[in-house]
Amino acid sequence: MIGEEPSKIRAWEADEHDFIVRALTAVNVRESDARDVADVLVAADLRGVESHGIARLETFYVRRIEAGVVNAQPEYTTLADRPTQFALDAGNGLGHPAGKFAMRKTIGKAREHGLAFATVRNSNHYGIAAYYAMMALEHGLIGLSMTNSTHLAVPTFGAKKTTGTNPIAVAIPAGEHPPYVLDMATTGVTFGRLEVSERKGKQLKPGWAVDAEGRETLDPVAAKTTGALLPLGGYGTDNGGHKGYGLGALVDILCGVLSGGLFAAAADVPETGMHGGIVGNFFGAFRVGALRDETAFRRDLDRELQTFEQSAPVPGSQRVMVAGTPERENTERFRREGVPINERVWETLDALAERLKIAQLSRFTV
Amino acid sequence: MIGEEPSKIRAWEADEHDFIVRALTAVNVRESDARDVADVLVAADLRGVESHGIARLETFYVRRIEAGVVNAQPEYTTLADRPTQFALDAGNGLGHPAGKFAMRKTIGKAREHGLAFATVRNSNHYGIAAYYAMMALEHGLIGLSMTNSTHLAVPTFGAKKTTGTNPIAVAIPAGEHPPYVLDMATTGVTFGRLEVSERKGKQLKPGWAVDAEGRETLDPVAAKTTGALLPLGGYGTDNGGHKGYGLGALVDILCGVLSGGLFAAAADVPETGMHGGIVGNFFGAFRVGALRDETAFRRDLDRELQTFEQSAPVPGSQRVMVAGTPERENTERFRREGVPINERVWETLDALAERLKIAQLSRFTV
Repeated sequence: MIGEEPSKIRAWEADEHDFIVRALTAVNVRESDARDVADVLVAADLRGVESHGIARLETFYVRRIEAGVVNAQPEYTTLADRPTQFALDAGNGLGHPAGKFAMRKTIGKAREHGLAFATVRNSNHYGIAAYYAMMALEHGLIGLSMTNSTHLAVPTFGAKKTTGTNPIAVAIPAGEHPPYVLDMATTGVTFGRLEVSERKGKQLKPGWAVDAEGRETLDPVAAKTTGALLPLGGYGTDNGGHKGYGLGALVDILCGVLSGGLFAAAADVPETGMHGGIVGNFFGAFRVGALRDETAFRRDLDRELQTFEQSAPVPGSQRVMVAGTPERENTERFRREGVPINERVWETLDALAERLKIAQLSRFTV
Repeated sequence: MIGEEPSKIRAWEADEHDFIVRALTAVNVRESDARDVADVLVAADLRGVESHGIARLETFYVRRIEAGVVNAQPEYTTLADRPTQFALDAGNGLGHPAGKFAMRKTIGKAREHGLAFATVRNSNHYGIAAYYAMMALEHGLIGLSMTNSTHLAVPTFGAKKTTGTNPIAVAIPAGEHPPYVLDMATTGVTFGRLEVSERKGKQLKPGWAVDAEGRETLDPVAAKTTGALLPLGGYGTDNGGHKGYGLGALVDILCGVLSGGLFAAAADVPETGMHGGIVGNFFGAFRVGALRDETAFRRDLDRELQTFEQSAPVPGSQRVMVAGTPERENTERFRREGVPINERVWETLDALAERLKIAQLSRFTV
């Protein structure tokens, strides 16, 4: 989706969900776990975050389970369970069921005690960070979700990748206004943006990526093959690149070090390779009412968000939006019009169906 | 300090502290409150964050107290006090004593219950965010500190200022390695950078600021007088400007809306003007041991930070650092060599001493 028109070949949400469950149960994932994965992948596609949706089903999940590097039926171990803390070892299972499990625990504790944090270690790619933060909204809570990942980004003035895109997601319930949902990689752009630029034969923008030596590059091929992403704020410190790097490192400290999981060189493996158990998460939930009257808060947050939205845009430019609006609008649209799936992804899904001997995902064209 | 050599006219830390206490008690601030302010301002100057140190003593604090827009002897009101939450109305007093008071409460609760959050409303400029986060370090806790401020930055694609520089600070204790201390404005640069560029007759860098209509500008005068700062990530969405805007808005929601304080248009006043009570804060503290063995965490965080520091730098470039290192090195140096104070600031301090009939701050030249 990034910088591209949505595909005209669509699937209905429920069909996509079913297909993901079929594929994962075919490789021995428990049905309830498969449903968790499907929930998160479908949410990503609905939100227009194609890179984190069904496009990754085979490479990131099915293949790794088949290769035995990710456990289809993991055993979870509770490492800490206190009134306001929970720490989980996910047994190298899929990231989505572990993330949902830990976030449900976090929510339960926050409902009772006002706030709670949780860590997950020895897990795997959990999809979009926003999904878990948004779970808190159904309970009227503020939600927080972070994950580390395989290494894709250099530190400020560094030549070697030391962190992933390490996203931070926060979801805050409002009143009449839809919730505030921030979900941001701590890099300037995602790896997918480099791929889109390469496909279109376009140069990168300054501040996006570096070459093998850590020097800023506008060449998508150099960036993609031997280079790396830059932190949010770009190269060096002039535009605050050290802030993006600082946030990315913070996410790694909370998800990798505090969880007791892997971090630093141990998590430095190729993103699409055959590996398992290198991902950790950090979750939080927080009850507004523990600090302020909830009705007053929601009313005021409506006003705050409307102030942003109603503020004057740059002449000739787009409207001013708040975090979460484009993704919410995509969700409404794609629920109505079908979920767009890229043509190349359809090919991999059909091949996967054939290989796993499951029914294809049905589609239609708009 | 930003982009400039430190001044050769210096003061000793203790003398600077005494002078600040003299000035504030002269305008009727309680001595213990004056000491709190001095602690934070001296820490800023030691860390090399001159813009947040004694340079602001007269304009931001003394003058506003004299004008009666900030209360010299405020009454605090506790709005919420639960095992893991604390909410304070600072009675429109100085921001530093209120911040320290609320952070001490937060720390006490976190020591007992593992984690705690606090809000402060109806307060004033509290100096560097890092100070409060770092208070947690003395107790072996992770500390969090955020503040909103007068409006200086436009939202993505916006022409009108809607948020301040809205910093986020996080401090995390390590083992042998000094703590990880991230303190970042959610704008690309601070207002001070525009002033330095103007003084040097240099153009701004792309991504720093916009003109009165919200269009990107490289002209420091246009940016300073009628323009505004851009969020971290710069103009538009290409380099992630919407992420910096999203973080800035998040800080405003937690510090302005959740605290029950002022936000949106109510906080839109000139930064150096005569106003009071428009600032809110958000604090957090978190005990590592509630989630993971503390010794193991500290040992692993050492390894994590060393991995960053020992990773290869870009050829011909600086070393790779971690958040907090430059400020810690400044502190060590300026404790030894004296605190640098800008020549123009010395003039205002001498005039202030004369006006308040207090002893001057003594100085020496290096």
